[in-house]
Amino acid sequence: MDFARRAWDHSFPMDPIVRTLLDTDFYKFLMGQMIWEKHFNDEATFALANRTKSVRLGDMIDLDELREQLDHVRSLRFLANELIWLRGQTFYGQEGMFSPSYIDFLRRLRLPDYELRVDAESGQIVFETHGRWAEVTFWEIYVLSVVNELRNRAVMKTMGRSQLDILYARAKVKLYAKLERLAKVEDLNLTDFGTRRRHGFLWQEHCILTAREVLGEAFTGTSNAFLALKHGLEARGTNAHELPMALAALCPPQDDECLANAQYKVLQQWQNSYRGGLLVFLPDTFGTTQFLANAPQWVSNWTGARPDSKLPVDAGEELIAFWERMAVDPREKLIIFSDGMDVEIPGFAPNGSDIIAVHEHFKGRVRLGFGWGTMLTNDFLGCHPADPDALKPISLVCKLKAANGHPAVKLSDNYSKATGPAEEVERYRRVFGVHGASEVPTLV
Amino acid sequence: MDFARRAWDHSFPMDPIVRTLLDTDFYKFLMGQMIWEKHFNDEATFALANRTKSVRLGDMIDLDELREQLDHVRSLRFLANELIWLRGQTFYGQEGMFSPSYIDFLRRLRLPDYELRVDAESGQIVFETHGRWAEVTFWEIYVLSVVNELRNRAVMKTMGRSQLDILYARAKVKLYAKLERLAKVEDLNLTDFGTRRRHGFLWQEHCILTAREVLGEAFTGTSNAFLALKHGLEARGTNAHELPMALAALCPPQDDECLANAQYKVLQQWQNSYRGGLLVFLPDTFGTTQFLANAPQWVSNWTGARPDSKLPVDAGEELIAFWERMAVDPREKLIIFSDGMDVEIPGFAPNGSDIIAVHEHFKGRVRLGFGWGTMLTNDFLGCHPADPDALKPISLVCKLKAANGHPAVKLSDNYSKATGPAEEVERYRRVFGVHGASEVPTLV
Repeated sequence: MDFARRAWDHSFPMDPIVRTLLDTDFYKFLMGQMIWEKHFNDEATFALANRTKSVRLGDMIDLDELREQLDHVRSLRFLANELIWLRGQTFYGQEGMFSPSYIDFLRRLRLPDYELRVDAESGQIVFETHGRWAEVTFWEIYVLSVVNELRNRAVMKTMGRSQLDILYARAKVKLYAKLERLAKVEDLNLTDFGTRRRHGFLWQEHCILTAREVLGEAFTGTSNAFLALKHGLEARGTNAHELPMALAALCPPQDDECLANAQYKVLQQWQNSYRGGLLVFLPDTFGTTQFLANAPQWVSNWTGARPDSKLPVDAGEELIAFWERMAVDPREKLIIFSDGMDVEIPGFAPNGSDIIAVHEHFKGRVRLGFGWGTMLTNDFLGCHPADPDALKPISLVCKLKAANGHPAVKLSDNYSKATGPAEEVERYRRVFGVHGASEVPTLV
Repeated sequence: MDFARRAWDHSFPMDPIVRTLLDTDFYKFLMGQMIWEKHFNDEATFALANRTKSVRLGDMIDLDELREQLDHVRSLRFLANELIWLRGQTFYGQEGMFSPSYIDFLRRLRLPDYELRVDAESGQIVFETHGRWAEVTFWEIYVLSVVNELRNRAVMKTMGRSQLDILYARAKVKLYAKLERLAKVEDLNLTDFGTRRRHGFLWQEHCILTAREVLGEAFTGTSNAFLALKHGLEARGTNAHELPMALAALCPPQDDECLANAQYKVLQQWQNSYRGGLLVFLPDTFGTTQFLANAPQWVSNWTGARPDSKLPVDAGEELIAFWERMAVDPREKLIIFSDGMDVEIPGFAPNGSDIIAVHEHFKGRVRLGFGWGTMLTNDFLGCHPADPDALKPISLVCKLKAANGHPAVKLSDNYSKATGPAEEVERYRRVFGVHGASEVPTLV
C-alpha cells in the first residue's frame, strides 16, 4: 500500500489546472512578440464569454475555487528551461524567432489582476482583465482551460467510481476509433489545437500521445507549448482574431478608412516579424468575403489561410477562388481548417465538420492542414453512463473587449459569433458589409 | 514515486493466477461432498482438452511457467476463514449444507500430482491427473483458469502499453454496453459462471462488481466461491457432467442396463444430499431427448434443469414439453441457460446465444435463470487494436477421462462435444441412441 499516495489523494490542497505558464497555445508567443514589438504601450481588456447559454457555469463552479486556480496562474513564472526552449527551438525552419529581449520580457512577466463575479440573471461567470496588451493577452488560454476543467470537475464530482471508469474507457475508445479512421487518410497533416477546451491537462496529454502513436508522421504536432517541450513534438500555431480586432479598435473614432484597412495592416505588421509557414492569415474577423474581395495582391503571397467561422467547404472554395483570381496556383497554398472539426465514427454523429470529408473534398487542389481542437481533447459525448450530454463541450471564449478604451468588435462569417457593443457592430457592418455571412450553429 | 511498487512490478518472481483454493466454482464443493460421501474410494482421471484446435496452446505457453503456476496451486491449502465461510453460509436457504467431516476433508486437501507435456503434432498441452475422485475433481477449474490466463498473457506480452490501454478500455465498454441492455430486461436472473474461462482473476472481479452495480437485484451472484466470499455475493452452482459420466463408467463392463440407468442414479444420490434450489438436473450428458423420454416421474419433482449443449430455445421447448407430459406446471420449474450465452450489442455479433432473445422467448412460460460464463468474463473480441481475434476465447475443458480405470464417455446433444474412446462412444450411442443430437458450432 502506498500510504503517502493515498493520504495525498485524499487531502491534497489543490489540483492545479495550469501547471506552468508554458501550458498555453504557442500562438500566444507568436502574437505576443508582435504585440510587444509594435504595441508595447497599448492597453487591452479581455473578457470571458460563454456562448452556450444553457450551461450556467456560475451555478456549477465554486467562485472561490476558480479564484484559487486563477491566483495560482498569477503566481507562476516562466522557468529557465522553458525560456531556453522557446529561444532555442527552430520553428517552421526559422531560427531565433523570438528575440532575446522578448524572452527577457517573458522572464519578468506577471499576469495582471482580474475581476471575477457571477451574473445572477444569466448564471454566467463574469471574468474581465485589463492591462498592457502584451501581458494581458496571456490570460486567454489560462482562463479558458481553467474554467472548462472546473466545469468538467463539477460534473465528475457527481459521478461514482465505476461511472468514472466507464466514462474514461468510452472516451478512450471514441478517440481511438477516430484516430484509426484518420490513420487511413493519405497525406494527412493534423495538429492538436485543443488546449483551450480540453477535458483536462492529463487527458490532452493522453490524446496527443495516442495520436502520435496511431497517426505517426500525419500527426504534426501540438499548439500546446508545454506538451511540445515535454514530448519533443513540434509546437504549432498561427494568429487569432485579437490582432485585427485590436488594430481596428485602435483606429481614430469614425475613421472608416483606417477601420477597413486594419485587417491588412495587421498582416503587414506580422510579415515584418515572421516568414514562411507562419504567414497564414485569418480572413474572417470582419467577414471572409469582403476580406478576400478587397485584399491587396501581396496578401496572395502569404503561405496560406486559416478559415475559422464558415463551413469548411464553403470557406475553402472561396479561398481557392481568391488565389485563382490573384493568378496564384492554389496547389502551392495551405488551408488550415480548425473551426469545429471532428471525425465521424460508427454510432456517433460528429459534433462538427468531418475532417475526412473535408480532406476528401479538397485533396490535390490545395495543401491541407487540420487544427483539431475541442473534439480531439474533449469528446466525452455519450460517455457518461447516466447523462450522455453532461460533458458536452461548451463554446467558451475569452475575447478582446477593448483596446485603449475603445470597444473591440468581431463580425465573423457567422452571425452568432459576432462580439462587441450593438452600435459598434452596426458601424462595422456598415463599413465591411455582411456579404457572405450566415447563421451556423456554433457547436464548439 | 512509489519506488517499492515500481521495483516489484519490474521484478516480481511470479504473478499467481489462482490466489486461493477457494478461487474455484462453487459446484466443485457441492459435487465434491457427494463424491466424498458416496464414492470415497473411487478413483478418477481428468484430462485437459482444447476443442479449439487452431489455437496451438503448446506453442504459445511456456511449459515451465505453466508448471510453476500448477505447482503453486498444489502448494495452496484452504484457509480457516474460507472453511468457516463454507460451513457457515446458508445456500439456497439451506443451513449447514456442508457436513463438518467434509469441511475437515477440505482442510486436509492436497491436490494430486499431474503429468504435463506438449504434443508436438497437435501443438496442444497434455495435462492429466489421477487420484481419489474426491480430491482430483478439484483440478478442473484451477487448470482451466491457469491455462486460459497464460494464453491471454502470452498474447498480451506482444502488445505495447497503449495497445493494452485501448484493449482494456474497449473490453470495459463492451461489457458495460451488454450490462446496460440487460438492465432493461424485466425479471432477469443472471449469475456469473465465468471462472473457468475468464480473462484473468482481476478482470472477472471487475466484471462481477460492474454487473452488480448495473444490474442490481437481477445479478444474483457468482459461481466463484472466493469472489462470493470477498464481495458478499451469493455463491451459485449446480452440478456437472462428471457425475453421470463417472457413474456410467463405474458400471460393470457391458452392463447396458446399469449404463442406461446411471444418469438417473446420480440424481438419486444428489437428492440424498441436497434439496430445493440445488435440485437442478443436467439432462444432456448422454443426450437430452432420451434422458427426458425415459425419465422416471420423480425427476419431474426436481426444481429445474440446466441444458448445456442444445440451442437454448430447442432445449427449453423440450424441457417444457417434458414437464407438461409429466402433468407438472412448467411455470413452477426453473431452466438455467448456461451454454455459450452472450448479449448482442451494436457493432458486434454475439459470440453465442443472445440472453435477451432467449429470455423474451420463454418469459412467463417457465422460471428463468442465466449462467453467463465466457462472454461475461472473457470478451475481448475486437478489442486488440491490431488483431481483433487475438484474444478470442477458446473452448478449453478438463473432463473426466476414466473412473476406476474404465474410460468415461460423454455424448452430449452436440456431436462435436462428445468425448471418450471411439469404441466406447459407439457402445454408448447404441445404448442411449442419438435421437435429438446435432452438430452445432462450439464457440466457447
